[in-house]
Amino acid sequence: MIEFTPNVQKGSAPLYIQLYKSIRLEIQKGHLPAHTKLPAQRQLAKHLNVSRNTVDIAYQQLSAEGYVKGVERKGLFVVPLNQDLFFPEPKLDQSPKEEMPAIETRNRFDFRYGEVDLEHFPYKQWRKYTLESIHRENGDLFLYGYHQGEIGLRKEIAHYIYQSRGVRCQPEQIVVGAGTQYLIDLLCKLIGTEESSYAMEDPGYNRIRETFRHAGVTLSPIPLDDQGIRVDKLYESKATVVYVTPSHQFPTGVLMPLSRRHELLEWAKNVNGYIIEDDYDGEFRYVGLPIPALQGIDHHEHVIYLGTFAKSLTPAVRISYAVLPKRLLNSYTENFTHLQQTVSRLHQYTLERFMESGDWWRHLNRTKTRYKSRQQTLLRALKAHMPDLNISGNDSGLHVIVDTNLQLSEEELIRRAKTVGVAVYPTSIYYANAKPATSQVLLGFAGLSEETIEEGIQMLKKAWYHS
Amino acid sequence: MIEFTPNVQKGSAPLYIQLYKSIRLEIQKGHLPAHTKLPAQRQLAKHLNVSRNTVDIAYQQLSAEGYVKGVERKGLFVVPLNQDLFFPEPKLDQSPKEEMPAIETRNRFDFRYGEVDLEHFPYKQWRKYTLESIHRENGDLFLYGYHQGEIGLRKEIAHYIYQSRGVRCQPEQIVVGAGTQYLIDLLCKLIGTEESSYAMEDPGYNRIRETFRHAGVTLSPIPLDDQGIRVDKLYESKATVVYVTPSHQFPTGVLMPLSRRHELLEWAKNVNGYIIEDDYDGEFRYVGLPIPALQGIDHHEHVIYLGTFAKSLTPAVRISYAVLPKRLLNSYTENFTHLQQTVSRLHQYTLERFMESGDWWRHLNRTKTRYKSRQQTLLRALKAHMPDLNISGNDSGLHVIVDTNLQLSEEELIRRAKTVGVAVYPTSIYYANAKPATSQVLLGFAGLSEETIEEGIQMLKKAWYHS
Repeated sequence: MIEFTPNVQKGSAPLYIQLYKSIRLEIQKGHLPAHTKLPAQRQLAKHLNVSRNTVDIAYQQLSAEGYVKGVERKGLFVVPLNQDLFFPEPKLDQSPKEEMPAIETRNRFDFRYGEVDLEHFPYKQWRKYTLESIHRENGDLFLYGYHQGEIGLRKEIAHYIYQSRGVRCQPEQIVVGAGTQYLIDLLCKLIGTEESSYAMEDPGYNRIRETFRHAGVTLSPIPLDDQGIRVDKLYESKATVVYVTPSHQFPTGVLMPLSRRHELLEWAKNVNGYIIEDDYDGEFRYVGLPIPALQGIDHHEHVIYLGTFAKSLTPAVRISYAVLPKRLLNSYTENFTHLQQTVSRLHQYTLERFMESGDWWRHLNRTKTRYKSRQQTLLRALKAHMPDLNISGNDSGLHVIVDTNLQLSEEELIRRAKTVGVAVYPTSIYYANAKPATSQVLLGFAGLSEETIEEGIQMLKKAWYHS
Repeated sequence: MIEFTPNVQKGSAPLYIQLYKSIRLEIQKGHLPAHTKLPAQRQLAKHLNVSRNTVDIAYQQLSAEGYVKGVERKGLFVVPLNQDLFFPEPKLDQSPKEEMPAIETRNRFDFRYGEVDLEHFPYKQWRKYTLESIHRENGDLFLYGYHQGEIGLRKEIAHYIYQSRGVRCQPEQIVVGAGTQYLIDLLCKLIGTEESSYAMEDPGYNRIRETFRHAGVTLSPIPLDDQGIRVDKLYESKATVVYVTPSHQFPTGVLMPLSRRHELLEWAKNVNGYIIEDDYDGEFRYVGLPIPALQGIDHHEHVIYLGTFAKSLTPAVRISYAVLPKRLLNSYTENFTHLQQTVSRLHQYTLERFMESGDWWRHLNRTKTRYKSRQQTLLRALKAHMPDLNISGNDSGLHVIVDTNLQLSEEELIRRAKTVGVAVYPTSIYYANAKPATSQVLLGFAGLSEETIEEGIQMLKKAWYHS
């Protein structure tokens, strides 16, 4: 009566699992064809010398997964299944191939842009406030947080950007998000991609350009002059939304003067559009006072301000924020509260405590001083060792652009630098229609000690001028 | 010769700032009209009895911001600026209004879905591995991480989902992201929104539906039967991408049996489409073994598997992941590496250490046991106190749906519950075209102790049956 003997052995996996798997295999192989009735529980239990409970659980599992189906008062029957879908079993390579993207081996002298100073990071304070967040008493921090970002953190940010950048906003206008790219994508959804057309500085940050493109917008590249984006070209483009970096144009370093800022605001008013002001490193100005944000002189709700902790603290915690003008805020509140917050609630708490404690200002001042002397070392070394170089973008920020005035391509400059263990970076990737100077490259300095900078520039000189 | 006397007083702010602000104000007010020449540095310094350096810095700042402009050998001249744009100065309310979204006061008996067990969270272990991450020796963790997610974490995830969910993948197929919504949006970009049309279970998770809509896709709601999504209706919809929750349909709790899974895979093969399998709580099955993921029986690269730590650990750290079939992985690698990773690198490290240590499995087993007894308590209490109730979705997951069989609307059930301090939740928000049973509501239980559950259900009985 029992036409098959499932393979069940005491001592290895739990009996019900062995039984379930064994019957499942028989079904998969077609040995128990569709509509076959499974033996009654009592019979099979006796046959296999296992408890009836074991059979019961195995049958329940087969039934739950859909291998068998109960027919009232008649028992369990094998479900007709497409046998072809079972074999061949896909194989899992036992040892995952190590073709993983290798972490690049860093050059010793890596003038990479986007680094921060790890030597003097406030590990101790960050640890302290982090520990506070991982406590039963603060357990709520382990639940979903408020979609727009934690209220306490947004108050700290509002206070900070007013003090430091002249940005005028209420905490409720701030939307926290996991990186500027995430926020750009959100803004495209908020503003709309069909009715509005977009524009962006050319050259401009390539990752942002890609983000706009993948958001499905029409994107016009707008050329720059020595005051920043050309507003006449902006009018020509018919765009109604523009992305700019007025305090420190990326990558050229141009600072947009007040007259151009006024022109740009005037443009926004005329086309009833939006200016997305990305103030990615506005904190780091080494000559005189920081230049106040464009947002602070906008009286007509046209500017969307973007800030980030990626340069001023660390990119690892992924905390950026947007300040929405009130008319956009309404649309956000009506249509986007379904989006869960993307930034860790624990990190938001940690940052809030860090900011309210005053450790933040201390950190910021120290970092500014440190980056300033790194930048000065870099400029000094460049001028001393390679007097023919043109340097631009050097009043602020965490990178400079050098034009070697050599008849060498960007690739060749990078290649030669590499041979002496120095990494320098292309600028051509930032250009859409515009063309970079032939022989220019980008050097970031935030992550390098002064000694490394000095030594690295000496190596560069050898690579570029003596080979 | 010096036509104005800037207001500079020793003892308050630095002199150069006072000087700069004072001149700036004169320009803004029009007292120093366009093309006015500023006094020579030496003269003004003498006139004000300040050092020449003070004047120099103030002038530099005015020049950097674009209030004045140098003309070679002639001096600095006021730039023509649109006076209207300066006044009135926008006001910043000194005390940010407290109209911030108030944190809702929680009901004592809150059967909210999406909570986790805070009482038994592994604070100690999480603290331990977190502390490891905030150390100078691990300083690199404070820089940008790999865009797809940390390699070590992806290895742990690949191992875990194979063991626990039968998902077959290499770590390089895994893309980590800040929440399932973020990943859904990314998938829409990857698959494309113009050539493909999308479908989703109806009822289904509303936040996901909104996410699809805002990604700009055409979305067809597909009805369910007692085996899950109706594949015949899926064919009719002409969609080529479908979002499903086969292991525990949200919100109905239907488990998709094998035959339907095969039908669905067959559909994907026929339309050459994609199945997005959201396995949001697949770990939590209380009867028998967990049901293996659909991805594990897909031989033709049609299934995109989505997993999350939001239910199994905590939603606060925002760690979800997608397993891309290889043909999508190619497109990702070619077109989406511009996107910075959205999940904190520190949290990724912490989770990796937590998982590789074995603490993860202990946590998972304990949590499963705990949720199982909470669920049993809930079912027992419901059956004991309200025998007329129909309960569904009760073999797994972290919520159940109850149909009260009362002639009361969802709103009325929720309102009555509220009067006795109990929060229960609507299901109507999950329905697009389909209609929920008149008098059903949703009860989550993961965040509530057994005592609270028992007491809360007694309160519910009073509210629903005796008022």
